[in-house]
Amino acid sequence: MHYSKITCFVAVLLLFFPGNAQEIKTKEDSMMLRNIYTEALENGKAYEDLRSLCKDIGARLSGSVSAEMAVQWGYHRLKKYDFDSVYLQEVMVPHWERGTKENGYYQSENGKITKVNLLALGGSVPTNGIMSGEIIMFENRDALLKAEKKAIEGKIVFIAQPMDQKMITTFNAYGACYPIRGFGAIDAARLGAKAVIIRSLSLSEHEHPHTGTMRYEEGLKKIPAAALSTNDATALENLIKESQGKLTFHFGMDCKVLPDKLSHNVIAEIKGSENPNNIITIGGHLDSWDIGEGAHDDGAGIVHSMEALRILKELNYQPKNTLRVVFFMNEENGNMGGKTYAKKVKASGENHILAIESDRGGFSPRGFSVDGKQEHLDLIRSFQRLFKPYLIHHFEFGYGGVDIGPLKDQFEDIGLFGFVPDSQRYFDFHHNANDVFENVNKRELELGAGSLSALLYLLDRYWM
Amino acid sequence: MHYSKITCFVAVLLLFFPGNAQEIKTKEDSMMLRNIYTEALENGKAYEDLRSLCKDIGARLSGSVSAEMAVQWGYHRLKKYDFDSVYLQEVMVPHWERGTKENGYYQSENGKITKVNLLALGGSVPTNGIMSGEIIMFENRDALLKAEKKAIEGKIVFIAQPMDQKMITTFNAYGACYPIRGFGAIDAARLGAKAVIIRSLSLSEHEHPHTGTMRYEEGLKKIPAAALSTNDATALENLIKESQGKLTFHFGMDCKVLPDKLSHNVIAEIKGSENPNNIITIGGHLDSWDIGEGAHDDGAGIVHSMEALRILKELNYQPKNTLRVVFFMNEENGNMGGKTYAKKVKASGENHILAIESDRGGFSPRGFSVDGKQEHLDLIRSFQRLFKPYLIHHFEFGYGGVDIGPLKDQFEDIGLFGFVPDSQRYFDFHHNANDVFENVNKRELELGAGSLSALLYLLDRYWM
Repeated sequence: MHYSKITCFVAVLLLFFPGNAQEIKTKEDSMMLRNIYTEALENGKAYEDLRSLCKDIGARLSGSVSAEMAVQWGYHRLKKYDFDSVYLQEVMVPHWERGTKENGYYQSENGKITKVNLLALGGSVPTNGIMSGEIIMFENRDALLKAEKKAIEGKIVFIAQPMDQKMITTFNAYGACYPIRGFGAIDAARLGAKAVIIRSLSLSEHEHPHTGTMRYEEGLKKIPAAALSTNDATALENLIKESQGKLTFHFGMDCKVLPDKLSHNVIAEIKGSENPNNIITIGGHLDSWDIGEGAHDDGAGIVHSMEALRILKELNYQPKNTLRVVFFMNEENGNMGGKTYAKKVKASGENHILAIESDRGGFSPRGFSVDGKQEHLDLIRSFQRLFKPYLIHHFEFGYGGVDIGPLKDQFEDIGLFGFVPDSQRYFDFHHNANDVFENVNKRELELGAGSLSALLYLLDRYWM
Repeated sequence: MHYSKITCFVAVLLLFFPGNAQEIKTKEDSMMLRNIYTEALENGKAYEDLRSLCKDIGARLSGSVSAEMAVQWGYHRLKKYDFDSVYLQEVMVPHWERGTKENGYYQSENGKITKVNLLALGGSVPTNGIMSGEIIMFENRDALLKAEKKAIEGKIVFIAQPMDQKMITTFNAYGACYPIRGFGAIDAARLGAKAVIIRSLSLSEHEHPHTGTMRYEEGLKKIPAAALSTNDATALENLIKESQGKLTFHFGMDCKVLPDKLSHNVIAEIKGSENPNNIITIGGHLDSWDIGEGAHDDGAGIVHSMEALRILKELNYQPKNTLRVVFFMNEENGNMGGKTYAKKVKASGENHILAIESDRGGFSPRGFSVDGKQEHLDLIRSFQRLFKPYLIHHFEFGYGGVDIGPLKDQFEDIGLFGFVPDSQRYFDFHHNANDVFENVNKRELELGAGSLSALLYLLDRYWM
């Protein structure tokens, strides 16, 4: 399109109501938000920080050498931005390694073989050489749960359940489909299966499988678990529906579970000028899966959080409360960073009043979800007019985040805020080889950083 | 992130208020919108239609063989969907061809040469062999307008003005920067320049130049005009700022202006059951620039519009008014399709009540802008609650669109509605080699089609 007739410009929302103190604050806040977003868009560091995390470090699963590199990277980036204090917090994390020999195919009775793209689910036991078995398909988890043991025993269960395209918020479709990945190995083992393979949790058809965490149950056999690419899962499902003959699946995975390892959360803060013992945390998770570069999940959250605090410092904002950035370790397969942090804050005697998390990718911002009390929702809704020029419109009760979640067990009055960007593309990239720096848009990332910085500023200023 | 705790599902908004007719309508409408979006997301044709337009046809500048292929493609797609009538409407269009010899470089006094990526602006005259001249840079159009003739005469003007990163809606940044492309050749020629080169209109730094339409003024010399990639423009600007020595620019372009050509708008409609003489148009433009594949600009608008009507037909909706899809020809460099359509509708005696345009790309939908009267805005704001489950939140006065704009001159009471998707990525792709099918996300495109179909349905049902 061309726009020869457009002469309109962004109207900076300056709300002039001369009069009482609250109204003056509104004008100051409006100008502060304009400065925050301008800093994010014109002098932002988020994009270069993300490039460095993705390209200088890359994928960084808990317990790996890369994860330790990421800890050092985080520590020195935060030092460079010259916050009041920067330190590491010890966290014991699980240590699982994928190995190097993942491969698989299926074979029909006439001998034809089809290679598939697969990934072990995180935490899976290995196959110990090649594992082979007849495939039995279930269209979804409910069908598997209703099946009889004798139909399944000794077979390889394939759960073909797709994420539901018609759900508008993709995280809801993910939540509804999550049990096939989280509990598939338990469900299948209980019925005597020798392994489980699932359709990758993604809304798009492509060749890259998506990994993610899975569980075993004490007392049940631990069976290997893998995800097929959505392309391969669709092809296999169609073949099974068309053919009456037996299909066998053959695969090898040399992943292993190793002893827990010492790792760290990385923390920086600006001390509060009025209430230094009141803590507001903003964070994301530093670990990622071992595939791709952890760019949206959750490199974006790391640089969002760091940038949110950097911008306030750059603009010489003196916070009332202590503002703290936390790069959480081990969100993906254990959440030991989040659990450890919550306990240590409680033990230190600090008063943790609010927390913000960014862990839904570096997409165009739409708003914030609130896990807290009515007064937390009312407060951020009172910011709605200030956020309107920045196209932030979503202020609803909802999920806070995995990392900040454990704070709720320690501080019952705490308010948790989850950053909500547009979710439509997230599951194209989530936990797969496509989650790389090149798939993050600079402006979208920077607008997220600006939005989070603005929220941090307003919460610090107005939370009583 | 993982979401083991999420068990929430999309809450389909069914508003139960037993009672009067208006309230029953609301429940019906809520279910209709759910069906529209489900059809768009589960059985949508928009993505495959766009693939075909981009890959089977490709770029399609007015007057080209490809544009005529696109007319035939559009006619037969619309026929396939079996609307009440499908027809072509004659339109005379300008015909400009790029040629095959675009190339350029700059040279410093020490002899060092630097090749640049450039594109002739649409409508430019050729250089007739190699054109060379000393570069004189202006940071923006205002600086050029204030310059003295003797400083410029015989030189090549370089306008380095970038789009403004801090504007949140990128179309506003585009509108503010548009004059360097639209009027740069006039401004520079008036001061005696032999050519003008501009920084491409884009918010991202990359190697692909962006073309677009430009103008000449009667009685002024027509000078060649080209856009440099943003990367090249930044490098050239930095070099000029650093160095005191003269820089010369050398380039060749063999573009040409040919006689106007006969082309067509492509039109399909479903006749109104109550008021067949009342017309509601929904459309986008079929032509594109000759670079890339015109995927976002405006392949998305073409398939959005076709899909909006197809969905209503698929759901057996009987419109009150005549609903018409128009694939406009020649939006990019003349708007002859839009102008011709408006005049012909008026001449036919039809009563054109409303029009909808999609020409801002196939990105995640955010709402609609209204160019009309207060009652048009009030009407679509009355749909706000129905649209909320689909995350549509923007209902404001604003621009309708280039193609439907001329209807306003013919029908003074008409309401024009522009589809407003998220704008952050649009100018990465606009008028350049990146505007290809692969850069359109399937769900984002389908949600746009669903949103437009829902708006078309509601406007037909409730406009008096």
